[in-house]
Amino acid sequence: MKPIVSIIMGSTSDLPVMEKAAALLDQMEIPFEMLALSAHRTPREVEEFAAGASARGIKVIIAAAGMAAHLGGVIAALTTLPVIGVPIRSSFDGLDSLLSIVQMPPGIPVATVGVNGAMNAAVLAAQILALGDPGVAAKVASYKESLAAKIVKANEELGSVAYKFKTN
Amino acid sequence: MKPIVSIIMGSTSDLPVMEKAAALLDQMEIPFEMLALSAHRTPREVEEFAAGASARGIKVIIAAAGMAAHLGGVIAALTTLPVIGVPIRSSFDGLDSLLSIVQMPPGIPVATVGVNGAMNAAVLAAQILALGDPGVAAKVASYKESLAAKIVKANEELGSVAYKFKTN
Amino acid sequence: MKPIVSIIMGSTSDLPVMEKAAALLDQMEIPFEMLALSAHRTPREVEEFAAGASARGIKVIIAAAGMAAHLGGVIAALTTLPVIGVPIRSSFDGLDSLLSIVQMPPGIPVATVGVNGAMNAAVLAAQILALGDPGVAAKVASYKESLAAKIVKANEELGSVAYKFKTN
Amino acid sequence: MKPIVSIIMGSTSDLPVMEKAAALLDQMEIPFEMLALSAHRTPREVEEFAAGASARGIKVIIAAAGMAAHLGGVIAALTTLPVIGVPIRSSFDGLDSLLSIVQMPPGIPVATVGVNGAMNAAVLAAQILALGDPGVAAKVASYKESLAAKIVKANEELGSVAYKFKTN
Amino acid sequence: MKPIVSIIMGSTSDLPVMEKAAALLDQMEIPFEMLALSAHRTPREVEEFAAGASARGIKVIIAAAGMAAHLGGVIAALTTLPVIGVPIRSSFDGLDSLLSIVQMPPGIPVATVGVNGAMNAAVLAAQILALGDPGVAAKVASYKESLAAKIVKANEELGSVAYKFKTN
Amino acid sequence: MKPIVSIIMGSTSDLPVMEKAAALLDQMEIPFEMLALSAHRTPREVEEFAAGASARGIKVIIAAAGMAAHLGGVIAALTTLPVIGVPIRSSFDGLDSLLSIVQMPPGIPVATVGVNGAMNAAVLAAQILALGDPGVAAKVASYKESLAAKIVKANEELGSVAYKFKTN
Amino acid sequence: MKPIVSIIMGSTSDLPVMEKAAALLDQMEIPFEMLALSAHRTPREVEEFAAGASARGIKVIIAAAGMAAHLGGVIAALTTLPVIGVPIRSSFDGLDSLLSIVQMPPGIPVATVGVNGAMNAAVLAAQILALGDPGVAAKVASYKESLAAKIVKANEELGSVAYKFKTN
Amino acid sequence: MKPIVSIIMGSTSDLPVMEKAAALLDQMEIPFEMLALSAHRTPREVEEFAAGASARGIKVIIAAAGMAAHLGGVIAALTTLPVIGVPIRSSFDGLDSLLSIVQMPPGIPVATVGVNGAMNAAVLAAQILALGDPGVAAKVASYKESLAAKIVKANEELGSVAYKFKTN
Repeated sequence: MKPIVSIIMGSTSDLPVMEKAAALLDQMEIPFEMLALSAHRTPREVEEFAAGASARGIKVIIAAAGMAAHLGGVIAALTTLPVIGVPIRSSFDGLDSLLSIVQMPPGIPVATVGVNGAMNAAVLAAQILALGDPGVAAKVASYKESLAAKIVKANEELGSVAYKFKTN
Repeated sequence: MKPIVSIIMGSTSDLPVMEKAAALLDQMEIPFEMLALSAHRTPREVEEFAAGASARGIKVIIAAAGMAAHLGGVIAALTTLPVIGVPIRSSFDGLDSLLSIVQMPPGIPVATVGVNGAMNAAVLAAQILALGDPGVAAKVASYKESLAAKIVKANEELGSVAYKFKTN
Repeated sequence: MKPIVSIIMGSTSDLPVMEKAAALLDQMEIPFEMLALSAHRTPREVEEFAAGASARGIKVIIAAAGMAAHLGGVIAALTTLPVIGVPIRSSFDGLDSLLSIVQMPPGIPVATVGVNGAMNAAVLAAQILALGDPGVAAKVASYKESLAAKIVKANEELGSVAYKFKTN
Repeated sequence: MKPIVSIIMGSTSDLPVMEKAAALLDQMEIPFEMLALSAHRTPREVEEFAAGASARGIKVIIAAAGMAAHLGGVIAALTTLPVIGVPIRSSFDGLDSLLSIVQMPPGIPVATVGVNGAMNAAVLAAQILALGDPGVAAKVASYKESLAAKIVKANEELGSVAYKFKTN
Repeated sequence: MKPIVSIIMGSTSDLPVMEKAAALLDQMEIPFEMLALSAHRTPREVEEFAAGASARGIKVIIAAAGMAAHLGGVIAALTTLPVIGVPIRSSFDGLDSLLSIVQMPPGIPVATVGVNGAMNAAVLAAQILALGDPGVAAKVASYKESLAAKIVKANEELGSVAYKFKTN
Repeated sequence: MKPIVSIIMGSTSDLPVMEKAAALLDQMEIPFEMLALSAHRTPREVEEFAAGASARGIKVIIAAAGMAAHLGGVIAALTTLPVIGVPIRSSFDGLDSLLSIVQMPPGIPVATVGVNGAMNAAVLAAQILALGDPGVAAKVASYKESLAAKIVKANEELGSVAYKFKTN
Repeated sequence: MKPIVSIIMGSTSDLPVMEKAAALLDQMEIPFEMLALSAHRTPREVEEFAAGASARGIKVIIAAAGMAAHLGGVIAALTTLPVIGVPIRSSFDGLDSLLSIVQMPPGIPVATVGVNGAMNAAVLAAQILALGDPGVAAKVASYKESLAAKIVKANEELGSVAYKFKTN
Repeated sequence: MKPIVSIIMGSTSDLPVMEKAAALLDQMEIPFEMLALSAHRTPREVEEFAAGASARGIKVIIAAAGMAAHLGGVIAALTTLPVIGVPIRSSFDGLDSLLSIVQMPPGIPVATVGVNGAMNAAVLAAQILALGDPGVAAKVASYKESLAAKIVKANEELGSVAYKFKTN
C-alpha cells in the first residue's frame, strides 16, 4: 500500500499538533506518510521530495511550519500537487506563520487552514481525494454528518443546566 | 413560561463564559433558553431555529462563537430579531472572533459586545427588553445603580492601604 | 412628532458616514434627531443628554466616534437605553475606535457595529424598535427581503460577463 | 459543457478582483460558472447552491468575500466539495476577511489563499482538478513553467539598469 | 498634609499594578491619595472628582484603566490638570487599553505611559512636580542616577558568567 | 525672552505635523524654540541638548519622531525634565512610532500623545506649565472652554440637515 | 571587476524601492550585481545562485521580497554568506513581508532591515564589508558623518520659521 | 585574547535568552564579551562603549533589548561596526521590541533577527566574521551542515509513530 498523502513537518515538536491530521487520515483509511523536512535545514531534501512526490503516487501534501514558515511555499514551487499549509503557533499567536504561508505570490498557491488546524488539513485532503475516489467520498460524507452529533450532545448538556428562569 | 431570550453557543466549552449571561438573565427574572447550534456543524438546525424564533416568542438572540465566528451573522441573516454577538477568545486573543462578528455587511447587523463579554450581552438584552417591559426596566435601572457599589467597596479597600505619604 | 432615535456624533466630519443611518431611519419613517456631542469637549452636555434621553421619549441612541472613542461608553454609563456604537475610521484603520467602543467593562454594554457601519446601526435600531412596533417590524421585514435584490442584480451582471469556458 | 468550478462572490464589486480567477480557468479550458450569492442576503439560495453543487457536476467551489466573510464557511458546511476561500480586502487591509475565512472550526475546512488572491484560487482549483484529469495536469505543469518567464524578463530589465559599479 | 497627586483606578484588581506608583511617590515623599473611580460605574463621582481636584490642591492625576479605558480621557475633559494615563493589560496584551487612552482628540491630552507602566506614571508625575519644587527635583535627580546602579550590578553578574572564549 | 518649551523633531518633513504644536504655544504666548535633532544622526548633539536644557530654562520638551522613534526616550534618559513624545505616522499607521515611544522601561517615562498628536503635545505642555504660572493657567482654562464651541457649531450644522422624519 | 554584493529581487516592480540600495553601493564604489530571482517561480535558479555565490566572490547578499517573503530565507539556507533581507511593502503595510523574513528558525539568520529599507540594506552591507576593507571603511565613516548634515540643514529651515513667541 | 564580538543587554533578566548566543560563539571559538548597558539608564556608558568598540578590536555588536528597544539603534548611531539587534519578548509578544529595532531611519541600520533570536544573532555574527577568517568560515560551514542532523533524527522519530494506514 503506497501513501497518497504526505504529512510534512519541520520538527517532532510539531507532532502533538499534526497527529490529529494523521489520526483523521487513518480513520478514513487513506494511506499516508509522515516526514520531517525543513525548508531551511534540509533544502535539497525538500527539493528532492517535492520534485518526486507526484511520481511516487502522492496526491496531496500537508506541510506544517511555524514562524517564518516557508516549507509549504517552497514545496509548492516545486510540484503541481495541491499543497495544504498548516500554520503552527509559536510566536505572535501564529500570525507570523499564517501570513508566511497564506500570502503566496500569484501562481503558487498554498491552501491554508487555520493556526494549528491539522484536523482541517486532513479533512481538506480527504475532500480533494474524494473527487476521484467514491470510497473516500463516502467516508467524508459520513464524517461531515457525524459533526452534528457533537452539537446534539452539547444540547443535552445545556438542557441539564438548571436556572429558575431557564425554560429548556 | 415561554423563553424570550435565546442564548446560543456552538459548544459546551463556551459554557464557562456564557453562564454569566444566563445568571444575569435569571437574576432579572427574564425567561430564557440555552441551545447548542453551529453555523458549520448544524447549518440546517440554525436555519430552522432562526426562521422560527420570532414565532416562538423569542425577542432577542445572544449568539456566542469563536475563531471564524459565523453563528451570529448566519442567524441575523434569517431573522429580523436583534442578534447580540459574543466573540469567544480562543486564538489571536479573540481578534478573529471579534472581526468575524462585528464586521457584518450593510443590512445585517450583529450587536457586538467585547471578547468573552457574556455579561454585557445579557445586560444589553435586558436593556432592549426594558423598552417594552416596565418590570424589566426597573430591574435594569436597579442593576445599573448597583454597579457603583463595587466602586464604593474598592474605595474602602484602597483607603485601608497605608503608605507614609498617602493621605486618604 | 417626537424623536425616538438619537444619532450622536462628535463632529460634522462624521456626517458623510452617519448620513447613511439618517437616510435609513428616514426611509423606515422612524422619527429621529441628530446631535453633535463630545465626551471630551462637552462632557456636561453629554451627561445632560444621556440622563434626560429616556424621559424625552428616546428609545435607542446611536453614538459615532473615532480614535479613543469614549462617546458611546460615556452615554451608556448614564442611561439604561440601548446604546449602539459606530466606530469611525480615522487612524489604525479604525481599530482604535473599534476597541475603544466594544471592549466595555461588565455591566455597561455598547452594541457595537463594524467600522463606519452607520447603516447597520440604523438597521439594528429599527430591529430593536420593531419588537414593540408592528409598523416598524413590517418595514424591517420588507427591508431585509429587499437585500436579496442586490444579489439578483449582481447575478444578472455576472451572467453577462463572457468567457469562452464560462457556462452561465 | 457543464461547469466544474463555481466562482461565487457576494457582489459585482468583487468582480475586478475575481476576474483574474475567471481568466485563468478560461485559459486552462476548465468550464466554470460565476454566481453572486451572499451568506447574509440570500442565505437560502446559498444553501440550495451548496447542497446541489456536487450533483450538478461541480468539483471545486471558489468563494470570495470581504469583511466578516462567512460565505466560504457557510458553503463548506453544506457540501463535501473542496471550498477555496478568497479574502477580499475592504477594511483592516483584509485581515478581517482573512481571519473570518481561514480560522474555521475542526471538520469544516476552507482552503484559504492570500488577500485578493483570485489568481491563486484558480491555480489551486486547477491543481486539484489535475489529480483526476491529465489534460488539466498538462496545462498546470505548463503554466507553472511559464512563471519563470517573468523572472527571465525581469533579469533582462535589471541587466539594462546601469550604474558605474554595477557589473551585470 | 494634603495630597498633590491622585492615583485613580477602577478596581482593586488594578492595585497590584498601581502599587508601584504609590511606592515611588511615597519614596519621593510626595503626598498622594488613592481612589477608586469608574468612568462607567460612577460617572457622576468622576465628574465631581475631576471638577474639584485642582481646588483641593491636586496637581497631577494618574488614572489607570483597562479594556475600553475611558477613565483618563473623561477626567481630562473635566480638568486642566495634567492627567497621566496607565493602560492596564487585560486583553489584547493591553492594546485596547493603550489605544483607548493615547488616541485622544485634539485639545484633551492624556499623557500616556506604557502598558502596566505604573512606575513610569509616578516618575512622570514627580518630574512635573519637580518643575515647581526643588525638593522633589533633587529626589528625581537622585532617583534617575540610581537607575544606573541596576546596570552596574548586572555587569557584575554578567562578568561572573564563564565561557571558554568569553573574555570579560 | 528665553524659551521654556523645546519642540524637537528629526526632520523638516515632520514640520507639517508639528506646526500645530508651535501655533498653539504661540497662541498661548508660551516662548518656545524649534530644533532639529536626531537620536541616530546627531547623537552627540542630542546629548548636549538634553543635558543642558534645564540649565537654559527649558521646562518641557516635546519630541516628535517616526518609525523606530528613539528621540524622546534618548532625551528622557539625559534629563529630568518632562518629555512629551509625539509618534509620527510613516509606516504601520504609526504603530511602530507609538510603541517605540510609549513602551519605555521603568524609570524613564515619555509622556506619549496620539499618533501625529502635535496639538495635544502642546496642550499637555501648557497644562504642565500652568501648574506654576497663573497666566498660562488662565489661557489653558480659556482654551479648554473654547473646545465646546466647535460642538455648538456642529450642532447648528446638523440642525440644518433636513430629512422628512428628522425632528431637530 | 567582479561583484561582491548581490542585490536580488523577485520582480522589477521592486526596483523603485531597491534602486536606493544600488545607488548607495555605487556611491561607495562597491561592485555589485542586480538579479531577479524568485523562491517560488525559479526555485532551482535560486538554489544555483545561492550555492555558487561565495565561489563567485560574492560576500553579502541583499534579498528583497514582499508578502510571503521566502527569498531571503531560502537563500540563507543554501549559503553561509550573510544575507540581508528587505521586506517590501505590498499588503498589511509590509507586516507579512517583515514577519516572513525576520522570524527565521534557529541556525538560519536573515539580517532584516525595515520595511522598504533598501538604503539601510546597502549601508549594512557596506558596514560588513568595511570590516575587511579599509577603503570601504573610510567611505562608511564619511557617509555616517554626512548624515548629520541633513539635520544641520533642517535646523536652518526650522530657524527661519517665524512665530511671535518662537525664540530661535 | 581580545574579544571581537560584544553581546550587550540591558538586564540580567535577558540572560536566559542571550546565553544561547554566548554558547554558540563559544562553540565556534570566537572570543566575545558580555556587558550590561542601557540606552536609558546608562546613556553615557553606551556612548563610550559604542565610540570605543572598534578601536578595542570589536568587529560585531549584538544588542538585545525589549519594549521600546533603543539600545541597538543608539549604538548603531555611534559606530560603523555592524550592529545585530535581538528583540526581547516582554509585551505585545515582542512586536514593540521588533518594530523599535528594525524600523531604523535611512543610514543607521540594525541587522534584526527574530524575537528572542539570540542563536541567530550569534550565527549571523559568525557569518560576518567568516568573510575575513577562514577558521570561522569552516566552523560556520560545519555548523550549517549539522542543522540537517536534527531533521534526520526527527525523521527517525516520525518513522516510529505507528498508524494502521501510515506507510513509512
